Amino acid sequence: MRYVRLTIAYDGTEYFGWQYQPDKRTVQGTLEAAVEEVTTTWTRIVASSRTDAGVHAVGQVVSFPTATRLDNDELRKALNAVLPYDLVVREVRDARYGFNATRESVRKRYRYLLQEGRLRDPLGRGHSWHVPYPLEVDAMQAGGNLLLGEHDFSAYESTGSKRETSVRTVYDVTVQRRELELGPRIAIEIEANGFLYNMVRNIAGTLALVGRRKHPPAWMREVLDSRDRRRAGMTAPPHALFLLWVKFADDFLE
Amino acid sequence: MRYVRLTIAYDGTEYFGWQYQPDKRTVQGTLEAAVEEVTTTWTRIVASSRTDAGVHAVGQVVSFPTATRLDNDELRKALNAVLPYDLVVREVRDARYGFNATRESVRKRYRYLLQEGRLRDPLGRGHSWHVPYPLEVDAMQAGGNLLLGEHDFSAYESTGSKRETSVRTVYDVTVQRRELELGPRIAIEIEANGFLYNMVRNIAGTLALVGRRKHPPAWMREVLDSRDRRRAGMTAPPHALFLLWVKFADDFLE
Repeated sequence: MRYVRLTIAYDGTEYFGWQYQPDKRTVQGTLEAAVEEVTTTWTRIVASSRTDAGVHAVGQVVSFPTATRLDNDELRKALNAVLPYDLVVREVRDARYGFNATRESVRKRYRYLLQEGRLRDPLGRGHSWHVPYPLEVDAMQAGGNLLLGEHDFSAYESTGSKRETSVRTVYDVTVQRRELELGPRIAIEIEANGFLYNMVRNIAGTLALVGRRKHPPAWMREVLDSRDRRRAGMTAPPHALFLLWVKFADDFLE
Repeated sequence: MRYVRLTIAYDGTEYFGWQYQPDKRTVQGTLEAAVEEVTTTWTRIVASSRTDAGVHAVGQVVSFPTATRLDNDELRKALNAVLPYDLVVREVRDARYGFNATRESVRKRYRYLLQEGRLRDPLGRGHSWHVPYPLEVDAMQAGGNLLLGEHDFSAYESTGSKRETSVRTVYDVTVQRRELELGPRIAIEIEANGFLYNMVRNIAGTLALVGRRKHPPAWMREVLDSRDRRRAGMTAPPHALFLLWVKFADDFLE
C-alpha cells in the first residue's frame, strides 16, 4: 500500500461540486469510480478543496492510498482513458505514507473572472460573471490590497460552515484587465493559506461594488473589520471561479 | 423603409449553424424571430457568412430592411432584451438602401484554436480542437505563408458547394502560441476576400499535420497547387472556429 497525490483539472459546469452525493454527478464520485475501475479496488479520495457546484479547477490536488502495481505514469494514462471529457488527471506523484490532501495543504490560489460592460459576451459565458457596468480595476486593486495579511475573514464567509477559526492569511490579491481569447475580462486572483466557505466569491462580489464606485476601496477593510457578513456584497456566482493550484509544506522545501 | 447592418456575436455550440431550418435552433431563425417581436414585422435577414453548426462568431455582420421607428441604439437594446444568452447584438448601424451583407463583404478574418499536447484540457474544450501531439508553430507559420495571395483554393474546399469560382485572395495567415485564460492554445488566423466551403477548417486540419512534422511546410503549397481535396488533411471540427470580423467596401473608405 502506498499513497499517491494527483493534480487534476475539471470543468465544473456539469458537476454538482467535488463532494460525493448519491445519484448526483460529482467530481469525487466520478474520480473514485475511475480509480476503482483501473485498480479494481474502491478507495476514498480526499481533495484539498471541496469545490462547490459549478466551480472549475486548473490544479486541484487529491490523494488516496492504493495497492496498484501501475507506476505513476501508467496510472495517469489509465485513469484518463476512462475519465469523461470534463475531468483530466494532469499528474500522478508519490506521497508519503498517510498523506492527506485535505489536511495538509498550506497555500492555495484562486482566480475569479468578471466580464464588465453593457453587452454580455456570449462566448465564454460559462466561465465568467457578467457585470453590466464599467469597472475600475485600480480601485478594485486598492481595495484588495487592504485584505492582505492575517485577519478574521468572517465578514467574507458564508454561513453554513463550521470551522475552528475564521482567521486566514492572504498573501496576494491581484486584479488585472486581460485581453483573452473569448473577449476582455477582469481577473481577480487571491492567494491564501486557506479559504473560508465562499470567501473568494464573497470578496469578488464585494470588489465588484468597489469597481462600480458604489463604495471606496477603504470599504473592503471596513467590511473586514466589522466581521459582519451582512455588510459585504453579494456572493458572486460559482461558474466564474477557478482553483488554480494548491501547495503543501513539502513543495516549499523543494 | 431603411436598411440596417448589425454586428452580432454568438456561441455556436447550441445552434445548428446560421441558416434557417424549420424545427431547428439556428442563428438566423432566432434573430429573425427577435426582429419580428421587436418591430412587429417579419423580415428576411442575410449574413455575410453562413457559419456551420457549432461555429462561433465574434463579429458576424447581418443586414435587413426595416420600417421600425426605433433608432439604432434603441433597436440594439430591444433586440438584446429578447435574444437568448448565447446571441448578442453588439452594434446597429445604418446601411445604404438595398445593402446586402452576403453579397457585399470584401474581407473577412477567422480564428481557429488548437489545444496541443498529450493531455486534453477540460476547460474551454467547447472552443478548441485537441490535437494530442506537440505542434511546431514555426513550421505551421511557414506553411501558412505559402497560401498568401490569389490562388485557386479548390484543394481546401469541401465538396457540396456550388461557387462560380474557387479563386480567393488570402491576405494574412498568422499562427501563434498564446497563453490564454483557459490554458495555452495555438491560434491560426486567416484573412481573405472570401472563403470557400470549410476552407478554414480544411487549412487548419492540414496545418496540424505540418505542425506534427508529418509533412514539411512546402506541402501546404503542393496540396494547393494540386487542386485536389483528397491530398489535404482532415476537416478540423467546427467548435474551434470563430468568425472574427467582416468588412465592406465602405469600411475601407472611412
